[in-house]
Amino acid sequence: MKPTFGPEVLTPLAFLARSGGVFGERVAMVDGDSRLSYSELAQRCERLSGALASLGVEAGDRVSLLAPNTTLSLEAHFGVPMSGAVLNALNIRLSASELGYIVGHAESKVLLAHHRFADLARALLKESGTNTRLVICGGPEDEYEQLLDSAVPHAVPVQDEWALLSINYTSGTTGRPKGVMYSHRGAYLQSLAMVAQVGLGPDSVFLWTLPMFHCNGWCFPWAVTAAGGRHVALEVVDPGEIWRLIKTLGVSHLNAAPTVLTSLVSHPDAQPVHRKLLVATGGAPPSPSLLARLDELNIDVIHLYGLTETYGPAVICDWWPEWSSLGPEDRARLKARQGVANLVSNPLRVIDAEGRDVPPDGVTTGEVVLRGNNVMLGYYRDPEATSRASVDGPGGKWFRTGDVGVMHPDGYLELKDRVKDVIISGGENITSIEVEQVLDSHPAVLESAVVGVPDSHWGEVPVAFVAVRPGFAVGEDELIEHVKARIARFKAPKRIYFDELPKTATGKIQKFRLRTLAREQATET
Amino acid sequence: MKPTFGPEVLTPLAFLARSGGVFGERVAMVDGDSRLSYSELAQRCERLSGALASLGVEAGDRVSLLAPNTTLSLEAHFGVPMSGAVLNALNIRLSASELGYIVGHAESKVLLAHHRFADLARALLKESGTNTRLVICGGPEDEYEQLLDSAVPHAVPVQDEWALLSINYTSGTTGRPKGVMYSHRGAYLQSLAMVAQVGLGPDSVFLWTLPMFHCNGWCFPWAVTAAGGRHVALEVVDPGEIWRLIKTLGVSHLNAAPTVLTSLVSHPDAQPVHRKLLVATGGAPPSPSLLARLDELNIDVIHLYGLTETYGPAVICDWWPEWSSLGPEDRARLKARQGVANLVSNPLRVIDAEGRDVPPDGVTTGEVVLRGNNVMLGYYRDPEATSRASVDGPGGKWFRTGDVGVMHPDGYLELKDRVKDVIISGGENITSIEVEQVLDSHPAVLESAVVGVPDSHWGEVPVAFVAVRPGFAVGEDELIEHVKARIARFKAPKRIYFDELPKTATGKIQKFRLRTLAREQATET
Repeated sequence: MKPTFGPEVLTPLAFLARSGGVFGERVAMVDGDSRLSYSELAQRCERLSGALASLGVEAGDRVSLLAPNTTLSLEAHFGVPMSGAVLNALNIRLSASELGYIVGHAESKVLLAHHRFADLARALLKESGTNTRLVICGGPEDEYEQLLDSAVPHAVPVQDEWALLSINYTSGTTGRPKGVMYSHRGAYLQSLAMVAQVGLGPDSVFLWTLPMFHCNGWCFPWAVTAAGGRHVALEVVDPGEIWRLIKTLGVSHLNAAPTVLTSLVSHPDAQPVHRKLLVATGGAPPSPSLLARLDELNIDVIHLYGLTETYGPAVICDWWPEWSSLGPEDRARLKARQGVANLVSNPLRVIDAEGRDVPPDGVTTGEVVLRGNNVMLGYYRDPEATSRASVDGPGGKWFRTGDVGVMHPDGYLELKDRVKDVIISGGENITSIEVEQVLDSHPAVLESAVVGVPDSHWGEVPVAFVAVRPGFAVGEDELIEHVKARIARFKAPKRIYFDELPKTATGKIQKFRLRTLAREQATET
Repeated sequence: MKPTFGPEVLTPLAFLARSGGVFGERVAMVDGDSRLSYSELAQRCERLSGALASLGVEAGDRVSLLAPNTTLSLEAHFGVPMSGAVLNALNIRLSASELGYIVGHAESKVLLAHHRFADLARALLKESGTNTRLVICGGPEDEYEQLLDSAVPHAVPVQDEWALLSINYTSGTTGRPKGVMYSHRGAYLQSLAMVAQVGLGPDSVFLWTLPMFHCNGWCFPWAVTAAGGRHVALEVVDPGEIWRLIKTLGVSHLNAAPTVLTSLVSHPDAQPVHRKLLVATGGAPPSPSLLARLDELNIDVIHLYGLTETYGPAVICDWWPEWSSLGPEDRARLKARQGVANLVSNPLRVIDAEGRDVPPDGVTTGEVVLRGNNVMLGYYRDPEATSRASVDGPGGKWFRTGDVGVMHPDGYLELKDRVKDVIISGGENITSIEVEQVLDSHPAVLESAVVGVPDSHWGEVPVAFVAVRPGFAVGEDELIEHVKARIARFKAPKRIYFDELPKTATGKIQKFRLRTLAREQATET
């Protein structure tokens, strides 16, 4: 049917238009000592859009962003698409050559760079092979504020809700990074799901621990704005600074990987918070001991799961109120599950190699596949990779996550591993997460990571990397026995290396680096 | 851009599919002594859909519903569209001839009727001139359960999110009722806005004081289900029963007109609730005294505004947290405003006769016009009425509400009157709401309604109908002086009639009846 009074296009830009009007004088962004109201934010974004137009940016052009979680990042999430351009937020932890590849592939017309990353910006542009215009924001070389001052406020109406909103490059641990394409419609719906399911409102205070360059911050730049909540910038992820901001600003929400939470709860400034703090976490299941400690600190946890390809968390461990009365172990077990499709996603599936649903028995593993308006449009300029990512090849509707999980009888998903992280030893599958959870249950273990190394007899064997909790000590044999006493003996690591664990910018443990390390160690011995 | 992995159709039916899976064993509906889990509800709706198919219902056919707020009503909101048919929920307070007209206009194939309304159903079908199949639900003549028992579960996939979901006939105080057409997309988005802005979640307990036949219960059958909350049926709006359910079931949310709230707070069973109760109210602004009383009872109020044509509340008085620290008078003044466009609506406007926005000065009145995906598809089989409802005629995007309001400097709307309720006396506009608010501020006044009657000298003059608070007494002269002392003397009622006020099924005062009464009285004297 053709609507008489519409259709109105679904776009997250509508959220700033709304909050700019409704919550005009309220603080939208706290960035150090600076405070930006919602009407100021809306006006500055329109000026940024005008400034980009004055630099020759046209509809469909790409604009890259190289910035930590500061005002610049938030403004780019609205101002860039307002100009009709496509936002490409870059991971500030990558090298100039990696970033150069991305900006070259995106053929970005403009690069907005935070002044602390001016040198990296210049270096990456040398690598990109593009004629990208660099705009520095802040510091002695600032041009951004100048451009905004002289700009004519301007917003190009979104004509098509399926239009390209942003391109987020995957970290590319295998092969070249791929550009994940988000639509206005997908981001709009994912934002509404986050508002509803994380419970954002006008009294929310959201601390930016999760990088905005990671899946566009799970769509929270748009979601928090939709709710009329307050954004709090965080330039560097420092536990002391996080505690200071939580206490002084009454933070109500933040998103972070469990490793960030682990560093937070073990910090000397950790104290129970007066205002209930809700932490959304993903990337790895929160351990029972972490959950218990967070509980003491008056911090609630929502466990989420998703990928760059699904606008961040397409899956959420929806919590039954009835579960809150269970004991701590049961609660931790239920919360360790990644959960169910979020409010705007289609029901998720776990399938076997033939594409059939695995039985929901909590045991049989399969690949997690997802579907919904919050699945990417595809990989930018890479139709082959796009069709490889689909269960049914070109035109297929189910997206292959590459993650291995089981379906519990109640319909909740629990991840077991990345497809490529499953260790196959003597024909048996060992999921690294299972072994890590047992290692983590030892009091001396701060965190652990298990990878497979080639073995002439078994094919592969598991080895573990362990970071020891400060003030504790533990030996290799003791830990191996600890595992053997709890799960199948063949799953126990053959070797344990004690060290800090290498992590990505978003706090994920870099297993590919550990795998390389383990192979080198195995060759040496 | 064409999505690779989608598009997925937006439909509120997805919410039941999701909650049926995620919250399977949790209670979805409490109806008297019966409890229905989410998986049972989902299965019963699929059976209802199958039963309708077995009766010959095909995609696009209309199915009418005549029921109070019981399980039948909730099931029809999912089961009817699941069959591909269009839901037409009927107002149980209308006469057989009014209902007959509606069912005849809709040409409904099936009428689902609650057993208490079996006689009315038979009578209306005599009037309708249609060959509609009657199905009685419950009681000695029950056929509904039998049909469900023998049905093959069945759900027709929604192909087009703009497809017709439901037709809700306006009350038709002038002329014949008009059929307001809702789309799947509009109801989906309006439901998400309600979940987010009223704060529904899996622990919500929603009491059905608002009829589901009124704008499909503001989309709450779908919204509460989306959130995985618990519906509580209410067959008759009785304050004692409402208090009993609030106390025994821990109700967290209900929607009701201020007149219902007034009867609630003055009931002998009124006691402060243990669990904070959030009441969404619309139809008339809650008075300061009502707000104060609700506050004592631990009941919060959200003030909303909308029409059948806008899926219920397209406008919400979004509350700044900062306002909560103001004094009771200021809070009441701010909360009396209808507010701003909701999360999924376009920013609203107030326009003058030439279609220009009135100045946002809180004084200049104009007509409220609305726009968004939650504006109706149009009036069923009435393109002329549809184009009259548009500011710009056929194809125009702004919907004329027929309501008169002012825009405050902060962008918040305050209604002053229905266009047709404005009293023009000696060339001056008198908005009835303004006079009513002054009358209501008198301690002896329970509620009041002001209408215009023809006057040979002034054109029109205001007269008032007043219901006196039990245990109080007040005379006509005293009340008229009370008004004159507070607002312009020409706005004071010329006559005051003391009586109960006639109301619609949804608790709205029926001004057209008072207008007739006032004219009769004026002729007599």
